[in-house]
Order: sequence, then structure tokens, then C-alpha cells
Amino acid sequence: MKGESDGAQGLEELARQLESFVEARDRVRFNSPKNLSMALAGEVGELIEHFQWLTQEQSSHLSAETHEAARQEIADVQIYLLLLARKLDIDLLQAARDRLQTSPR
Amino acid sequence: MKGESDGAQGLEELARQLESFVEARDRVRFNSPKNLSMALAGEVGELIEHFQWLTQEQSSHLSAETHEAARQEIADVQIYLLLLARKLDIDLLQAARDRLQTSPR
Amino acid sequence: MKGESDGAQGLEELARQLESFVEARDRVRFNSPKNLSMALAGEVGELIEHFQWLTQEQSSHLSAETHEAARQEIADVQIYLLLLARKLDIDLLQAARDRLQTSPR
Amino acid sequence: MKGESDGAQGLEELARQLESFVEARDRVRFNSPKNLSMALAGEVGELIEHFQWLTQEQSSHLSAETHEAARQEIADVQIYLLLLARKLDIDLLQAARDRLQTSPR
Repeated sequence: MKGESDGAQGLEELARQLESFVEARDRVRFNSPKNLSMALAGEVGELIEHFQWLTQEQSSHLSAETHEAARQEIADVQIYLLLLARKLDIDLLQAARDRLQTSPR
Repeated sequence: MKGESDGAQGLEELARQLESFVEARDRVRFNSPKNLSMALAGEVGELIEHFQWLTQEQSSHLSAETHEAARQEIADVQIYLLLLARKLDIDLLQAARDRLQTSPR
Repeated sequence: MKGESDGAQGLEELARQLESFVEARDRVRFNSPKNLSMALAGEVGELIEHFQWLTQEQSSHLSAETHEAARQEIADVQIYLLLLARKLDIDLLQAARDRLQTSPR
Repeated sequence: MKGESDGAQGLEELARQLESFVEARDRVRFNSPKNLSMALAGEVGELIEHFQWLTQEQSSHLSAETHEAARQEIADVQIYLLLLARKLDIDLLQAARDRLQTSPR
């Protein structure tokens, strides 16, 4: 597996880029956790469509085209998730770490 | 806004913790992008339920209880998103950065 | 396959029951298509969780318990879908028929 | 509100049209409840996108264009829901009626 490219350029940096991104656009639109949770659901819906007719096996061996499309949807999900977390003043990584430690799942 | 707690402890570290987590459980279950995309949709569904009857204004001022519940769902979404990205050999942060640069949205 | 129990007791009848149901509860809550679309997404999220770790084959042979749980989620999806359609003044069956005739899918 | 156009042409009739529709296409694709639940989630994701940046008030007064787009997504949701219910041998209307009687919601 490829490593995650964080370190100096981690989620914190991405969050800063998002601030500028949002700043340059419609601030109001991104201002409501309700709306952001809907945008998140919309992107996950687009993501799932790439896998719905595949077997589990096929979903592990995507065509280059489908892989790139899935990569973009996954990116969109991450972006809206980070926007939502920031809006709610939630530290995304800390929340995930806490969850791993407490959840038996 | 609170900062993201990455740096040395970023997504890369979380990914390692996830490996151990998955290792200790049902490997097969987490092995298919198809299944992981469904788990992602399930968690987003749980998340959205916390916001569905709130006004946009109310969704910015959650009760402590709802905030904690939302925090846990958001963490679950992040966990499944990272598992899915790793499974597809996608660098989550790089994908998000690329998306911010190319998408007019 | 079991037949659908409509005829005299079809969607129209269900819609009337829903009116009474909503009347007896929080009218405001059910009054917004935005909220209803979120409730729909929430229920679909609950539904998908019953299938996420199953193989396609297994999903065709549910245990009695999972079948009943899925039946309830499917019912909830139908209820919110009908509420949403009525709210938007959309004839659900006509819309579906139109779609079948025009969509190459 | 417009009435539902069932009676002689109810869900049962729609189900028959769906049989022909599926027959004429890829039978295997539509054969798994797992896949159908994903298709359902995908369509709900598309539907929710039409409402995500609207206020609750705005979502009650859609433009003709958005209304037609929402109508098509709602139709797709109904189609996949009926396919899923039939596949699981569930009477959609009876399930919804049972739910209304038992759920305090």
C-alpha cells in the first residue's frame, strides 16, 4: 500500500486549503452542518454507484477509469467530512482514534 | 476552530492503527471495496439522522449529547473512508488536494 | 413472488393513512422536502447495513430475523418516499411508469 | 395534493412492467438484494443533492427544472425499492401499513 502523504502536509494543511477554497466561494452554503451532512451523503451515493454492479472480487480490481472516478468521489467525501468536522469543532483524527479505542465494533 | 491533531500522528499513524484493528478482527469482511463503500453509506446514514429534523441554525448549535453522537458517526465515516482508500491504494490527502485544485465545484 | 396487495388498498389508501399519521404528530417536521429527503437517506443507510457484510448469494437467503429487519427498513423507505412525493405533488406510480418508458438505464 | 394513480394500475401493475424491464436487460445485475440496496442508496444520493443547498422553505418551492429532476430521482428510488422488495418476497404496501400501525416513530 502507498503511504499517506501527511507529515508536514497533513489534514491540518488540507483544512487550511479548504478555508481558502470556501472563502473564495459561497460562504453561506458551507456554513450549515445540516447541509454539509447532505453533501456528504450525496457524494457517498455517487461513490457507491461505481461498485453497485460489481462482485466483491471485481471491486478489488477496478479499471483505470473507474479507479480514477472512485478516487475523485473519495476525495469529495473527505473534503465534505473535514468541512463538517471543522464546522462542528471536531478534531477528525482524534475522534477516529478515540473510536478505535472504545468501539468493539 | 480547534486544530487538527496531525503532524507526527497523522492519517499515516491512524492507518497503522487501523491495520492492527482489522488484523485483530474479521479480515475478509474489510477486504472488499464494495463492502466498505456500503459500510460508509451506512455510517453516513446514521450521521444524517442527527441533523434531519433540525433547522440549519439548530444544526450549528447541537446539544452536548447530539454533538458527541455526531462526533462518533463522523469518526466512523473517517475510519471506513480510510480503509476504503487504503484498499484501493489511494492516498486520501493527495486525492483531496488534487480535487481542490482541479474542481471548480 | 408474492403479489402486491394493492387494488382498492393501494398507494392512495396508504397515502391517506399517512395523512392521519402525520396529523397526529409533528406536522412541521414532515413539512419540508429537504428534511424528508434526509430521512429517506437515513432509512436507506439503515437498510444497507443489513447487507454490507453479506455476499450477494447470502443477501438472497436472509435469516428470518434479518429478513424482518430489512422488511421494516424497506417499509420506512416507502413511507418517507411517499411523504416526499406527496409534498412535492408528485404521483409516485406515474413517475415510475414514465421513467420505465423513457430511461434506457 | 394530486391523488395517486393506482387502483387497477397500482404497484402490482408496476411490478409486472418491471419484470419485463428486467427481463429485457441484465438479469444477473438485478438479482441480488445486496446490489439493489446499493442502487437504492445511489439514487437517494442523487435525490438529496437537489436539496442540499436549499433552505427548507426553498425545498418546498422548486423550480420547474429541479422539480422534474427530483421527480425522476424519486421514480428511480421507487423502482429499485420495488425490485428489492420483490426480490425479498416482501409486499411493499403491506409492510408499510404494518409499520404505520406498530411504529411510534
